[in-house]
Amino acid sequence: MEHILHLKCLICGRTYQPDEVAYVCPAHGDEGILDVVYDYGRIAPHISPTTLATNREPSIWRYKPLLPVAPNTAVPPLAVGWTPLYKTDRLANDLGLQHVWVKDDGRNPTASFKDRASAIAVVKANEVSSVPVSSVTSPSHLATLSPPHPLTITTASTGNAAAALAGLCASVGLPNVIFVPKSAPQAKVAQLLALGATVLLVEGTYDDAFDLCLQAAAEFGWYNRNTGYNPYMTEGKKTVSYEIAEQLGWQAPDVVFVSVGDGCIIGGVHKGFKDLLALGWIEQMPRLIGVQAAGSNFLAEAWANGEDVLTKPPIQAQTVADSISAGLPRDRIKAMTAVTTTNGAFITVTDEEILAAIPALARGCGVFAEPAGAAAYAGLVKAAREGLVRPTDRIVVINTGSGLKDVATAMKAVERVGVRPYAIQPTLSAVKAVLKPGG
Amino acid sequence: MEHILHLKCLICGRTYQPDEVAYVCPAHGDEGILDVVYDYGRIAPHISPTTLATNREPSIWRYKPLLPVAPNTAVPPLAVGWTPLYKTDRLANDLGLQHVWVKDDGRNPTASFKDRASAIAVVKANEVSSVPVSSVTSPSHLATLSPPHPLTITTASTGNAAAALAGLCASVGLPNVIFVPKSAPQAKVAQLLALGATVLLVEGTYDDAFDLCLQAAAEFGWYNRNTGYNPYMTEGKKTVSYEIAEQLGWQAPDVVFVSVGDGCIIGGVHKGFKDLLALGWIEQMPRLIGVQAAGSNFLAEAWANGEDVLTKPPIQAQTVADSISAGLPRDRIKAMTAVTTTNGAFITVTDEEILAAIPALARGCGVFAEPAGAAAYAGLVKAAREGLVRPTDRIVVINTGSGLKDVATAMKAVERVGVRPYAIQPTLSAVKAVLKPGG
Repeated sequence: MEHILHLKCLICGRTYQPDEVAYVCPAHGDEGILDVVYDYGRIAPHISPTTLATNREPSIWRYKPLLPVAPNTAVPPLAVGWTPLYKTDRLANDLGLQHVWVKDDGRNPTASFKDRASAIAVVKANEVSSVPVSSVTSPSHLATLSPPHPLTITTASTGNAAAALAGLCASVGLPNVIFVPKSAPQAKVAQLLALGATVLLVEGTYDDAFDLCLQAAAEFGWYNRNTGYNPYMTEGKKTVSYEIAEQLGWQAPDVVFVSVGDGCIIGGVHKGFKDLLALGWIEQMPRLIGVQAAGSNFLAEAWANGEDVLTKPPIQAQTVADSISAGLPRDRIKAMTAVTTTNGAFITVTDEEILAAIPALARGCGVFAEPAGAAAYAGLVKAAREGLVRPTDRIVVINTGSGLKDVATAMKAVERVGVRPYAIQPTLSAVKAVLKPGG
Repeated sequence: MEHILHLKCLICGRTYQPDEVAYVCPAHGDEGILDVVYDYGRIAPHISPTTLATNREPSIWRYKPLLPVAPNTAVPPLAVGWTPLYKTDRLANDLGLQHVWVKDDGRNPTASFKDRASAIAVVKANEVSSVPVSSVTSPSHLATLSPPHPLTITTASTGNAAAALAGLCASVGLPNVIFVPKSAPQAKVAQLLALGATVLLVEGTYDDAFDLCLQAAAEFGWYNRNTGYNPYMTEGKKTVSYEIAEQLGWQAPDVVFVSVGDGCIIGGVHKGFKDLLALGWIEQMPRLIGVQAAGSNFLAEAWANGEDVLTKPPIQAQTVADSISAGLPRDRIKAMTAVTTTNGAFITVTDEEILAAIPALARGCGVFAEPAGAAAYAGLVKAAREGLVRPTDRIVVINTGSGLKDVATAMKAVERVGVRPYAIQPTLSAVKAVLKPGG
């Protein structure tokens, strides 16, 4: 993998070769998140807008030379990414804007953006399993590890990341262990179990589950997919920016709206556009707008007050948008950098605004989003109202998950806007009575 | 539309020009289902495997010259079709087979196969709205019709077809009215309402809703999308066969498994392969295996007993796979023809077998299917066990909908196979206690 120069610590700037460290910079406990730094000169001969113009691979693997994997590496079969980008003129008009697109990442294999990262996790885990595991993690108990058993992958999550890992693992037959807080909705647990994951319901909070997952991964030599910890997850998520740029004919948008919980997605969006700028495929960096729920506003607050995200204490997060509920965003360094270095902003939206955005987005363009996905659109609504975007801006809103992930909240959302079904007798006159003249 | 020769009645063989009739042959009430007959000589110059090899359109519209629409017609923006086809060697091995693929149509915009038909419905409705509506339907009440209001589209459905219509309509801003039985699950109703559909909960059965929908469509001049009534729905559904053949390098599979309720999907699968044979793009017609739930076996019973589907009385349908629960399959003529003329078969699977197929398919290849989708795989399991397929057969199983459409049944399914999450304290020793040695 000569196209990777090194991994660079986002706190101290120290660099490492990929085989020198497992996941984080050893100097900062679990906080030393690493960035993958590429040698673009080595990449450029292998991929360009011209080669992509005839590339029919409808997945993130069309960008393989830009990903942290070997050129000839096998990839999982599930078709991740290359999701549609829809121009939504009716929504734009409603907001007094001219150019609004919705990137529908609910169309991924397990119906969320997180598949982009889990696909990379499966490939990296496979790489690891072919080398002595002791070079990857260094707890004292490695003797209990068990090749010839296939390598196990693990993550903590209550929702989309877990389903994504379980789905991608099922596609290649890799065992996986998911740590979820005991309060996890039974429906999400059912999806994980159907996909063959080993599901551990941890008596405690999501943070407890996360910490236990880190410990267990080290103890048992499992490959660790955790967001804001494994440096390669950003590299999967960045593919969304490649796709947006390619789908817009390599003319980057002016502004991108994306919801923010742990911060890994907006970090990935930023990384993708940085890559394209470095390669000279686009001419400008879009302004990145991170949309947080008002009840889970760690980053918005830190940004507004100029606080240091490394020392700011966790908040108590509470929002209807469960996928972006994070008291201590795990990828907060990358997320803050994404906003501050692109002249972007963090904005917050209330649960009421998120709920209203679900039917507004769905009926405005046919994209049925989960609350966290609709939150990005709610952010655009607010930004348009407050003049944070110009009418002529070319704007992309990323929907990060399907509305089918949380139908209960969709029900609540339509009830709030007063939309109800009509109960009728099976007669034409009953139909006429409830419908306005002219149907 | 010179590439359409005529519409041909499947009962009496009479032919009509497309503008002569609205939906069905007038000689048989609502039963005279029409087939769209093409002039392949006019189509062939406009599309071929060679032109498709460089066509990057990732949707059903890559096959536009083979669809019943004008060459320059506008199409809805939602990206329908071009869903992945996965080779699933682990599943094949488990069944003693060599070549099994799963076509994942849960990856469509509203997460089911039905989007293929609804996309066509929206285009055809747009065509209709630009001509005098009186040439389309002929009830006596047309004076109440209401251009300049945009044309309304309608369908009866409890599930996937409704969501598909609501989603496709939302993408272009067309009003739509959905007739569902009062017993429809609230979750499905919520999705419809979020997408902006007008939802009528009919006091009565699905059959009552269907009949009322036909009446209302005629009364109000609404465009009628009902399956097994509108001849163009088959034309949307046939695109799945084009995709399968193209994804297999224009070598048709030996056998296709697809679940059957109303019978419109298997009719579409058949039509697609017939088109390709007529064009000379494939060399053989696959055997089509229609999989019915044991509790909704109208067609399987008729096939086994040699009964006439036009005179056989409706049955009482009852199955966990709601999408294929049909007492009187509306597209039974096309469905029966698909099986009998391809040397295929109808087979039945019990609800237990359908439930078992959900986790088996999910963990075997990462495709999480709704019960009706998993039923097709359950059919393959049974066929392999009973020797109805050869080990060397090249077999495609179509998953017609996402498992997220019916999470409650997925929960039931994993419970039946005894898979459960482990509740643990947040300690390493608790993890060790529940996991087998070696993880």
